[in-house]
Amino acid sequence: MKHVRIGIIGAGTVGTGLIQIIKEKATTVLHRSGININITKICDTSPNIKERFQDYNITSNYKEITEDKEIDLVVELVGGTGIAYTIVKSALENSKTVVTANKALLSEKGAELFDLAKKNNVEIGYEASVGGTIPVIRSIKTGLIANDFKGIYGILNGTTNFILTKMEEEDLDYLTALRIAQELGFAEKDPTFDVEGIDTAHKVSLLAGIAFGRKIDIKSMYVEGISNISKSEIITAKNLGYRIKLLGICKNNNGKIEAQVQPTMVPLEHSLASVRNEMNAIFLDTDFSGPLMFSGKGAGSLPTASAVLSDIVFYGSRIGNVTEFSENNIFPEANLTPHGQEMGRYYIRFNTLDRPGVLAEISHLLGKNGVSISTVRQDESPKEPVEVIIITHRCKESFVREAIKEIDSLPIIKSKSVIVRLEELG
Amino acid sequence: MKHVRIGIIGAGTVGTGLIQIIKEKATTVLHRSGININITKICDTSPNIKERFQDYNITSNYKEITEDKEIDLVVELVGGTGIAYTIVKSALENSKTVVTANKALLSEKGAELFDLAKKNNVEIGYEASVGGTIPVIRSIKTGLIANDFKGIYGILNGTTNFILTKMEEEDLDYLTALRIAQELGFAEKDPTFDVEGIDTAHKVSLLAGIAFGRKIDIKSMYVEGISNISKSEIITAKNLGYRIKLLGICKNNNGKIEAQVQPTMVPLEHSLASVRNEMNAIFLDTDFSGPLMFSGKGAGSLPTASAVLSDIVFYGSRIGNVTEFSENNIFPEANLTPHGQEMGRYYIRFNTLDRPGVLAEISHLLGKNGVSISTVRQDESPKEPVEVIIITHRCKESFVREAIKEIDSLPIIKSKSVIVRLEELG
Repeated sequence: MKHVRIGIIGAGTVGTGLIQIIKEKATTVLHRSGININITKICDTSPNIKERFQDYNITSNYKEITEDKEIDLVVELVGGTGIAYTIVKSALENSKTVVTANKALLSEKGAELFDLAKKNNVEIGYEASVGGTIPVIRSIKTGLIANDFKGIYGILNGTTNFILTKMEEEDLDYLTALRIAQELGFAEKDPTFDVEGIDTAHKVSLLAGIAFGRKIDIKSMYVEGISNISKSEIITAKNLGYRIKLLGICKNNNGKIEAQVQPTMVPLEHSLASVRNEMNAIFLDTDFSGPLMFSGKGAGSLPTASAVLSDIVFYGSRIGNVTEFSENNIFPEANLTPHGQEMGRYYIRFNTLDRPGVLAEISHLLGKNGVSISTVRQDESPKEPVEVIIITHRCKESFVREAIKEIDSLPIIKSKSVIVRLEELG
Repeated sequence: MKHVRIGIIGAGTVGTGLIQIIKEKATTVLHRSGININITKICDTSPNIKERFQDYNITSNYKEITEDKEIDLVVELVGGTGIAYTIVKSALENSKTVVTANKALLSEKGAELFDLAKKNNVEIGYEASVGGTIPVIRSIKTGLIANDFKGIYGILNGTTNFILTKMEEEDLDYLTALRIAQELGFAEKDPTFDVEGIDTAHKVSLLAGIAFGRKIDIKSMYVEGISNISKSEIITAKNLGYRIKLLGICKNNNGKIEAQVQPTMVPLEHSLASVRNEMNAIFLDTDFSGPLMFSGKGAGSLPTASAVLSDIVFYGSRIGNVTEFSENNIFPEANLTPHGQEMGRYYIRFNTLDRPGVLAEISHLLGKNGVSISTVRQDESPKEPVEVIIITHRCKESFVREAIKEIDSLPIIKSKSVIVRLEELG
């Protein structure tokens, strides 16, 4: 038996779930792993905290945890990049192992924090920061250790996946689906962080680090959310045999890293297409193991806390044992393919007047820009504008964007054309 | 850096893949984990073995590996329950950590071997034995350590999944699809072990051990393969919104364990339904993490070797360190629900004469046996026998079997009725 004495900072949704799980499952965990978890102290600044957790030592000062010599491991569940940064730094400086679910913090300050951990002979566990309850980080680091990763495609944000699912299954427009997500607690009051893809981008940067051993700043990543996706795209995608998902994508083409967040059409028969509502999934294309997929709950109190607990056990068991098999989380900067240079197939919807020669003009400008057409679709329409749907062959994204810029300035085009990436996913 | 000196016994498909991966990836693995893998010796009895592996120490006597003091970890890739049993026993008795992909051996002799490992302060890694390349065992043991498992539903055999996929997608009968699988190397010349569900049953018993902490003898498990599945079931399933998969199922209803292998209809929109060809998948229903699914290649040289290598790194890193956090693989006997007593929904196809009163007779006998009907379907048919399809509400399987026995003895029934389990999977 090994005792691991933990301090939990932040008793919000995930923190409360964690305290509950430890209470219910400490004996099971001890039996399964030989690790005996003790909650030594809880830090939270909310007013009723002492009433909520009467059986525990409570403090409102994080230093009483990060500087406590009786604590081996600090769980940071405050979130964000403000005070959470100070807390994690203080914990590491005091040679505490840290477990966190904070993707924003690790994506933005990871290099510094992992370096600090290394200097202090401790580790940072962050399984809960990507894919919620899904043990994808552990799987990449251990189960798939022999593999090089060609591509990672993730549905990494439950809010956006819930909205897209509702839009398709209940035939709703974006704003209505967003409102339902907000009412059910799947979206924040200000949903920007989720719906504009920023949360997904943070997770992509963490996955790229683990899988490719390269650091990616999300500022250099192309990040597009779902707020421009209309019912029209959802329906047309389905008719064409695809489903729109907000994918976080990173690929490694012989050392050239491509990373982006984009609404993407995936084939209906692909497992990623069957990931509904708030569920998350990660599809991995590897050299030796072939394709793999993991899916599960990407958020929520108990699912996230389950991943946090698995880190407490795993990293807790390594405390005092870190030097020999420490994980390398410090990565050199990625050689990132600039946005536009990546190859792909694209769905484009043009809204045009119903005139002779329209298709000729569009296809001429696509061809001039090096974009070759795979499928064209124009259905009879009683009113203008008419929708012309084009799916391209594989080409550079910048060619498509250039062509659309030219086409959109034609007088026959009635509104901005819509472009959605299309991934066949092997 | 920690050196792990391994001996590989069996240089067949997986062994050859493992030697290749270690050659190509030893440096990557060392960089990622701090573990330096050295192949100290290879044992194989095939005649050209020395020519195939000229850079290695070769022996045809397994004792030169299991008794070699220079070897820390023995990889058993011989397979089966004969000589492999002797090899693993000898390795453990000589205090070697063992890594194996041998589900049959661990399912049948696991209790004895895990006990022997414990006595000798070593461990047995067997990630590759269930789900091939998918890190499902590690995920259950570590990533999901906080969870109790309500149910596990696995597509655990690539051969049968390939055959069922071909039958549906290319409209083939069972024997033709089997022949194609054999030609492509997805099925053995004698396919009994796979198609009759025995391989899946071994894997179910291992999963039940890890997830429920209970030992299940496959002799006490209901095991049914796919050789009775006809095109008619495949097509009807699809029309009803289901797809037939050979599922290994184990459930835990408050300590009562249910375990079986059966062709099962799963809803088309469920992720398990989208697992095609030789791919494997495991769907887990957990208390804290909710539903999770893992999918990937269940067999093949490099995918399986990838899982073996992950065990070499994981258990290799623990050599000499086992006493403190050793995994518990020794389980008490399961309290198994006898076959027939499990609850479920069932698809039944009756082949009847086209006479008045047929449906009345069938539904009378179902009702008499406590089986209530959810859906009936009888399409117009130009010739006899006519197919009557019934889907039941949730009931005891034995009630259905009893009812069918009575119905099948009616003169209106022209051939044995077909019954397929149906799982809604939450």
